Order: sequence, then C-alpha cells, then structure tokens
Amino acid sequence: MDIVIGVDIGGTKTKIGLVDKNGKCLVKTFFRTREFPDLEEYLDEIKATSDELLKNLGAEANVLGCGIGAPNASSKNGTIENASNLIWKGSVPILSRLQERMDMPMRIMNDASAAALGEMLFGGAKDMQDFIVVTLGTGFGAGIVTNGQLVDGYDGFAGELGHVDMTIGDGRLTGLGVKGGLEAYVSATGLKRTIMYMQSHYMVPSRFRDIAYNDLHGEDITQAAEEGDEIALMAFDYTAQIMGLALANFTAFTQPEAFILMGGLTNSGKWILEPLEKYFNEALLEVYKGKVKIMLSGMEGKTAAICGAAALIWEKENR
Amino acid sequence: MDIVIGVDIGGTKTKIGLVDKNGKCLVKTFFRTREFPDLEEYLDEIKATSDELLKNLGAEANVLGCGIGAPNASSKNGTIENASNLIWKGSVPILSRLQERMDMPMRIMNDASAAALGEMLFGGAKDMQDFIVVTLGTGFGAGIVTNGQLVDGYDGFAGELGHVDMTIGDGRLTGLGVKGGLEAYVSATGLKRTIMYMQSHYMVPSRFRDIAYNDLHGEDITQAAEEGDEIALMAFDYTAQIMGLALANFTAFTQPEAFILMGGLTNSGKWILEPLEKYFNEALLEVYKGKVKIMLSGMEGKTAAICGAAALIWEKENR
Repeated sequence: MDIVIGVDIGGTKTKIGLVDKNGKCLVKTFFRTREFPDLEEYLDEIKATSDELLKNLGAEANVLGCGIGAPNASSKNGTIENASNLIWKGSVPILSRLQERMDMPMRIMNDASAAALGEMLFGGAKDMQDFIVVTLGTGFGAGIVTNGQLVDGYDGFAGELGHVDMTIGDGRLTGLGVKGGLEAYVSATGLKRTIMYMQSHYMVPSRFRDIAYNDLHGEDITQAAEEGDEIALMAFDYTAQIMGLALANFTAFTQPEAFILMGGLTNSGKWILEPLEKYFNEALLEVYKGKVKIMLSGMEGKTAAICGAAALIWEKENR
Repeated sequence: MDIVIGVDIGGTKTKIGLVDKNGKCLVKTFFRTREFPDLEEYLDEIKATSDELLKNLGAEANVLGCGIGAPNASSKNGTIENASNLIWKGSVPILSRLQERMDMPMRIMNDASAAALGEMLFGGAKDMQDFIVVTLGTGFGAGIVTNGQLVDGYDGFAGELGHVDMTIGDGRLTGLGVKGGLEAYVSATGLKRTIMYMQSHYMVPSRFRDIAYNDLHGEDITQAAEEGDEIALMAFDYTAQIMGLALANFTAFTQPEAFILMGGLTNSGKWILEPLEKYFNEALLEVYKGKVKIMLSGMEGKTAAICGAAALIWEKENR
C-alpha cells in the first residue's frame, strides 16, 4: 500500500504519522521538540520515529515520500527561518539535512500552507479555487489558495498574517516584535493576554482573578464563558471583534470563498464563532456580503497537521 | 497589422486606444464619462469612438478584440458593481451590452488588475511571478499577481485594498463608507484630505491657507513641498507613513517581489517615494527585509491604463 510520511514540526510537539491516499492517518506518534536542542539529534529522532512507525505498519508499506509542515518554513529554500517559537535560530537548512538521512522525495512548507493543501486534497475545500486556512494555535497562521494554487510568494514566505499590524504602529507586541500584530490578539495566546487585559480594564469579579497567566488554559476560558464569567465573555467578544475586522480586511485581498479555521482557539466553539460571524459580516464591504463563508476545518483535529504535511507529497502524486 | 482596442473606464474620462502586440498605443482619444449618464448612449459612444480610431488607422488594421479596464469590474461576471465614482449604480452588465454592439472577443477586468497584466506583458514585471501593482489616483487600487497569475478571487473582486481598514474601526470614511479605509489616506484624494488635516492640526503658515479644497491639485502640493511649505512636507510624510505600513502589511499576505506604483500621486516623485521607502523598510518583517522592491510603473503614464486594458486580449493571444 502506498503511504506518505507526514511530519508536523511545532514549538512544543513534533508529530509524525503515515497517511494513505485518502488522507487517512494510519498510525501516528509524537515527541517533544524541545528535548532535542541539537539539530542533528533532532533530525535523527525524526528518522528513528518514522522508521518505527513504518515497522509497525508492516511489510506492505510503499513509502512515496515525506512531507513536512513547520512554522516559518520556506518551500522554495527548503529552510526554516527565524521561527520565533523554535529553538534553532537563523536559517535552518532542514530539508537537505533530513534528505541525507531519509532517501526519498521530500517537501517542506509553512505549516498553515500545508494545512491549506490538506483541506484542498482531503478536507473541506475539495471544490474550492480560492480560500484561506487560518490556524489559531500558539500563533496565527494563514495558508492562502488563489486560482486553485497555494500562494508561496517571492521566496516562500507568503501568508504571515499574524504579523499584520492592526493598529497603525501601536498595541501589543508579537513574538517577532511587531507592534499591534494580529496574533498578539487572535490566537490561543492572544486570548490569554486578553484575559489579563480585561482584568486590568474592568473591576468585575471573575474566576480568573485567582489564576496566574501561566496556569491559564483555553478550555478553562471556554468553561468560564459557559458559566457566565464576564471577563471570559468580554475576552471572547474582543477577540472576535479584532478577528472579524481582520478577516474582512483579508477578504479585500484575495476574495476567498471561505475562511477555514483550525487550531486550539476553535475549540471554544460558539463563544468565539458567533461573535466572529457578527463582527465579520458587519465589517465586510458590500460587494463581498453573503459571499464569504467562515467554516471549521474538514480535517480531524488531531491529525490535521500531519495530513496537511503529507498532502505536500500526495499533491504531486495526484497531478 | 493585428491590434487590440483598449478601453479604460474612469470616473472622469473614458480613454480608448489601439494597441499593437508590443504594447505600443498607436492612436488614442478620450471622452468625458459623465457626459453620458445613460448607459446605452455611453456604450454607443464607446463603439463610435472605437470605429473612428480604427478608421484613422486605415485599412490594414486587423482587430483581435477589445479589453476593458474599469473600477469595481468583475471579470467573472462581466459587470461593474457599485463603483463609487461612476454614475451607473448597482450591477451593470457592461460586457454583454457592449458585445451586442461590437462583435469581437471581449474581456473586462478591474482597472488595477488590468494594469498588472499590462506590467507583466509590456512593462516592468516581465520576469516576475509575484508582484502587486498599486494605482494611486482618485482612489487606491491594487492588481495582485501570484504564481504568475492574476488573483481574481471567488467572483472577481480581489484586490480592493483601498478599503482595508487601517485603524480598527475609526478614522476617515472612504467613498464606500469604510471607516479608516486606506484610500482615504493614500491616494491623490487622500493627500488633499491630509492637507486639510494638517491645517487643522498645526498653526504653521502655509500657502494652502489661501486655497480651498476643491481648488487643490496634486502638482500644487508637489510645488509647495519643493518650496519648503511645512504643511505640504508634513502631508507627504504622513501619507508615506501610512502607505509604508500598509505595503509592509500587504507583503505579509502574498510576499510580492515588487510593488509597482502608478497614478497621479506618483507624479509627486521623491516627496512621496523617499519617505515611503523609509517607513516601508522600517515596518517590514525581518524575513522580508531587502527582498521587496518599490518601483515606478514601466509603462508610459498617459497610455498605461489603455495598454493594461488591451493586455486582457493580448494575454490570450500570447498563450
């Protein structure tokens, strides 16, 4: 059976899985990225983990290649460059170094772009020519498809929308030091920061008055909203307002048929999605109204990133 | 000789010309758009004007088709929709109505997208796969090219960047009523508005204290800057600052190799371009620094719009 190795490199976890031609992840595992600060050892671990998965799958597996999704990856250069939430600094030639260990077709891409390819091949965007995948995890990532093709940009760094300045030079700093950058507001991290902000701005009581920033988790904020905690409700409303305006702005760029959302923040469900719909439609230009959908990812949450990475190879096979 | 009719529909003038395969505009003329508030009479005038130009060119002209550039045009629908600076309101099915009069291959496109096609075929973007043309006239238009293709969007309205909100819901209103929309600041009109703003904000003397808004012209503002008028200098600096931040934001979207500028505001030369370069490079993310050029159009100013419109047909011929 033909399979593709999908590798999702994240700041916390590195996820690896074997994906068949229907986008089904047959086996998967992960290890902690930060346990391998040395790049060579890290790459050895990817190789060893892949080999183990292949062994588990048995003899019939025919490996077509390996696709890798990573933050700040350049598909054109085969590198990861200055990723704010990875240990290795500067320009990391990850593709060529991994190729030395694994002799097979290999591609790397920005994780959000890989996710967009995954949605196009296996998920909710099978019939779309123009859409944008938004990943709402630690940061805010975007994979943009126009004319049925991924937008790479001049040297592979298109879609860094988390660092778009929403405030004309003022506001929160992102991990890259951008003032007012979108992901400082709209991401799982941004929501936590907004819980802090609301506590500074209002005096209403809240369960969060007893919880430190580092102990805050997305699911607690969702839970608090369900219990009517005002700080939580205001935080979701504020996040949705900025996100709604941002997506309306982005619509003016490539006019996508849909924004497809994935990542931790989407687990908050209606608390983020309902106000988002409202603010988005309010902010949308007349000419776009009623034409742009906001959808949740059509991929299974836990394997979406792996399948997206594997789509880099499956896309070539299917051409 | 093969030629294409290029039609540029603007709020003030409708320009028509005959363009050869090298992008040379052989003959051209214009009439005033507002003199024909009745759509049928307007289309008759386009037909009559084209016929006259063809007659002037003589018998050897072989007409391959007619390309049209217009504000708020949808290439997919063949319409102009809710253009804020045109007389006809709602959705105008301009392509089918003109086709009844002129029996030849015909295409319509947003004027800035047509300009981008013109740059790609005839101008400064011949070797580029990823770039953005910015038209700085009455409004702010953008034609976006990624992967060597124009970005149309889901139904042809991509690139409406003049209505991107730069201020989180506050600020000047654009012609479409968007608060804080970019073109309210960065366009020939935006510059005039900023001359008003600077007079409200500062008490320094200026030649503009004696000139009413409706009597203001771009060339006077350039002239005043050359003579050291502080209001003019501050207005250019302010315009360049917002434009620099906007172009830096847009870079994060499709990572163009270049922004190619055209239109009235670019006639102000160094007064706008020098501070623009400075603010743009300051605002650019590290990963993009040194990779994105700001260029002036490679097309001759007076015929750029006509040649861009004609490029709609020449592009099909050259495929």
